[in-house]
Amino acid sequence: MPNVEHITQTVNRYLELVANGSADEIAELYADDATVEDPVGGGEVHIGRAAIRGFYANVENIKSKTELVTLRVAGHEAAFHFRLTLDFGNSGMRIEPIDVMVFDADGKISAMKAYWSPADTVKL
Amino acid sequence: MPNVEHITQTVNRYLELVANGSADEIAELYADDATVEDPVGGGEVHIGRAAIRGFYANVENIKSKTELVTLRVAGHEAAFHFRLTLDFGNSGMRIEPIDVMVFDADGKISAMKAYWSPADTVKL
Repeated sequence: MPNVEHITQTVNRYLELVANGSADEIAELYADDATVEDPVGGGEVHIGRAAIRGFYANVENIKSKTELVTLRVAGHEAAFHFRLTLDFGNSGMRIEPIDVMVFDADGKISAMKAYWSPADTVKL
Repeated sequence: MPNVEHITQTVNRYLELVANGSADEIAELYADDATVEDPVGGGEVHIGRAAIRGFYANVENIKSKTELVTLRVAGHEAAFHFRLTLDFGNSGMRIEPIDVMVFDADGKISAMKAYWSPADTVKL
């Protein structure tokens, strides 16, 4: 099973890839049959690595920065608060979600849920 | 279904009761068949309001303070980072968990998971 170091590294790698990586690279962090709900309650759960790749492909060309605010690793799961700053050229947006990730025995992300709502976004 | 205001109020009430309330009052916020895992990966999941009441009864006489740091409400769920300061008289401890709560149709908490580990505690 994944240990604290592996989970911490994967969360940091995830945030690095969300800012500067490709949808393919992000999808590689997930298990084949993983699920992604982002945001929670948004009405859509992406099931399987292909669907997850598609979800990240929608945003991979937006210029962005990420910054980890707080990380808690417990058991085979992680909860973390991070700052995502999107740069659309003439305008920007900042979102600070709390994400929860569950890891499988191989250390891949088997489930991710992102807690945020449009009310939490700030226009820049 | 519970709205953002109800969920926000319940989270704040929960933190107030953890600091100054009784195990009975805290258990009232939960659904009959709710589950509590605190901490995640700790090896024990408390199932049902009686078991949950027992869990909080273990700590209800410890003098403590709570402070909400960050709250995200999404769908029928909430994720929040809070500060818990325990006062044992001669010593103290600070823990800053990230908790996740799921709410049912009646606005009761149906599941709570607390993300923290002994490594996150600070002796005071």
